[in-house]
Amino acid sequence: MKIDAVDFFYLAMPVITTEADGSQDALLVRVSAGGLVGWGECEASPLVSIAAFVCPMSHGVCRPVSASVLGQTLSGPADIARMAAAVEYDSMDLLQAAHTWSGVEMALWDLVGKSRGEPVWRLLGYATSAPKTPYASQLFGDTPAETLELGRAARSKGFAAVKFGWGPLGRGTVADDRDQLAAAREGLGPEGILLVDVGQIFGEDVEAAAARLPALEKERAVWLEEPFAASAYEAYGALSRRSSTVKLAGGEGAHNVHMARHLIDYGRVGFVQIDCGRIGGIGPAKKVADYAVAKGVTYVNHTFTTHLALSASIQPYAGLADHRICEYPVAPKPLAFEITRNHLVPTEGTVSLPDAPGLGIEIDPDALKRYLVDIEIKVRGERIFATPDLV
Amino acid sequence: MKIDAVDFFYLAMPVITTEADGSQDALLVRVSAGGLVGWGECEASPLVSIAAFVCPMSHGVCRPVSASVLGQTLSGPADIARMAAAVEYDSMDLLQAAHTWSGVEMALWDLVGKSRGEPVWRLLGYATSAPKTPYASQLFGDTPAETLELGRAARSKGFAAVKFGWGPLGRGTVADDRDQLAAAREGLGPEGILLVDVGQIFGEDVEAAAARLPALEKERAVWLEEPFAASAYEAYGALSRRSSTVKLAGGEGAHNVHMARHLIDYGRVGFVQIDCGRIGGIGPAKKVADYAVAKGVTYVNHTFTTHLALSASIQPYAGLADHRICEYPVAPKPLAFEITRNHLVPTEGTVSLPDAPGLGIEIDPDALKRYLVDIEIKVRGERIFATPDLV
Repeated sequence: MKIDAVDFFYLAMPVITTEADGSQDALLVRVSAGGLVGWGECEASPLVSIAAFVCPMSHGVCRPVSASVLGQTLSGPADIARMAAAVEYDSMDLLQAAHTWSGVEMALWDLVGKSRGEPVWRLLGYATSAPKTPYASQLFGDTPAETLELGRAARSKGFAAVKFGWGPLGRGTVADDRDQLAAAREGLGPEGILLVDVGQIFGEDVEAAAARLPALEKERAVWLEEPFAASAYEAYGALSRRSSTVKLAGGEGAHNVHMARHLIDYGRVGFVQIDCGRIGGIGPAKKVADYAVAKGVTYVNHTFTTHLALSASIQPYAGLADHRICEYPVAPKPLAFEITRNHLVPTEGTVSLPDAPGLGIEIDPDALKRYLVDIEIKVRGERIFATPDLV
Repeated sequence: MKIDAVDFFYLAMPVITTEADGSQDALLVRVSAGGLVGWGECEASPLVSIAAFVCPMSHGVCRPVSASVLGQTLSGPADIARMAAAVEYDSMDLLQAAHTWSGVEMALWDLVGKSRGEPVWRLLGYATSAPKTPYASQLFGDTPAETLELGRAARSKGFAAVKFGWGPLGRGTVADDRDQLAAAREGLGPEGILLVDVGQIFGEDVEAAAARLPALEKERAVWLEEPFAASAYEAYGALSRRSSTVKLAGGEGAHNVHMARHLIDYGRVGFVQIDCGRIGGIGPAKKVADYAVAKGVTYVNHTFTTHLALSASIQPYAGLADHRICEYPVAPKPLAFEITRNHLVPTEGTVSLPDAPGLGIEIDPDALKRYLVDIEIKVRGERIFATPDLV
């Protein structure tokens, strides 16, 4: 197959708020080759990632992502790896390239899977796809009372594990956070698995993060996610030594395999969370999964958008039965749910990947139309990008 | 002062080639506040960096860079640091943000310097600006004979130090590279300072890089620059242990302070090379310079474009008299030379920063006009970016 076209669809809710909810927009990628189409999704600023695909070349190692993709031969995973290496080298000075390439790469796996009639996880070398325990991923309430209710609601929907994130945590006093964490535990009941995400709020301040450890330990949080900036490995490493029961989690900010490995080796995280929409797609995520296994660290998907991204995010560790927990956006914005015809629905407390070709997710063009943002980019009067037709 | 406007000017040569010459285009940034203007330059894909300034918000931590800058108060360096922290946090999911912010940040220093009548290096805390020894930064010839001539030519122009980069090195056999390095040494003569840049050609392959060490040692190369991918710290660290005379250099790929520190701590480089147009501007570069001093590593500027970027790149280590060597683009494309009215001209083998307010470099609007690339970006039919007027 030859790659004939790569089309980007920028989707957005009518109103975007400053809440840390990544499901408010999406950038879908459609790759056409050999009469088939594959779909992927960039977890990224859509306009910027489109620009990184179509921009004029600046010099030999600042080429647009398109230069490494359009017209290329696609027969199997080795071709995807070859294009990934070309993007890494020829776009090394284009920072956004990793985010743009991520969605393209996912679509290429989807395409190869469809052409071979195989699910992506099998192409990755897994004989089976193990069921995962989805955790309800949601934001903290503004008050402990709200958090308590959110916890109860998630449990009543059948979620054994719940992650609370962002919101007020780390922004007030240690006592405020203690109250929030106690409310979360109360909402989940004694058996619920409690996960906590603070969204880099402490920067590099190890003591500020450590001050929250007693409450996290008391409420039996399994992990504390992203206490620090994505690359603050020393802070992660220092905090990891301060608790014997609460492990650190992180990795969503990794935009290449090196960064994920360093978070494991230098940051000593117990859980490495990879977003296939940022790290360069499914191939590098699989490398991180292999590395996590070798290092005794648990791999977890990171995703907060559509079920296309959700399927892609689980593929890299589908066959790792012991790496069981799985992020699952429990209250995404309507666009994130509506743009796929099928969904990964939890049954009896677990979620499983489709045993269907590619990513096993069908896009709904009518839903895309409802959320499509029209974009036009002109360079020297020439239109280098316009929102493509859906058919 | 209130920041009234931030304007981007995308400049390019009429023809862009695949050579690794970063002076083929430029993205200049003009910041207006309090009736003054400051100028900066992003070392980045211009269209993509413009998009990162003007793009619609995706969510609370994927905001455009403009959200942290426009309308902000600017009185001094503390305001620049405050905006830098806002960009780092509120644009954490916008990968290109660091490159965009770099040019804005430079312009802010220029503005503050002009408003106070002080050069930037004095605002950074340096009492004096020490002269630097510029090295002629140029590409290897296609053949050893060409490289020999390039070396002779640079020496005859008065350069004591010459860096050869990219081109055929690492792409052929070890013997080919030995011939190239021997020609470089012959061209420089026995006293010339030889620096070698291989532009990440070895990926993570320590043995391939180590195979070139005997020739590098024989020809007395002072450093081997970027043997590996920017984040391959383990490979850097392993190679650094293989030679007692040739030190490693790297850092231009760092887009935050963490990455530069990690290259020092884990990658064990002897020279850390920072591009102010990528790392987030002059403030973070100064932090790296301080860290390099503390760790016994030599700081070097990285720049391959205009004399505005060159001035900005030297400010962070202007007062470090012992960190003497300085990258100096010896054969930039005409646009990179023409768009400033004044230049940092080497005299008696050294180059010095202007003792003038801000960055001390004057932009030539007529030259800008000659190379200006017209850009237009529309979202939902609304023009969110158009190339601004020069006056």
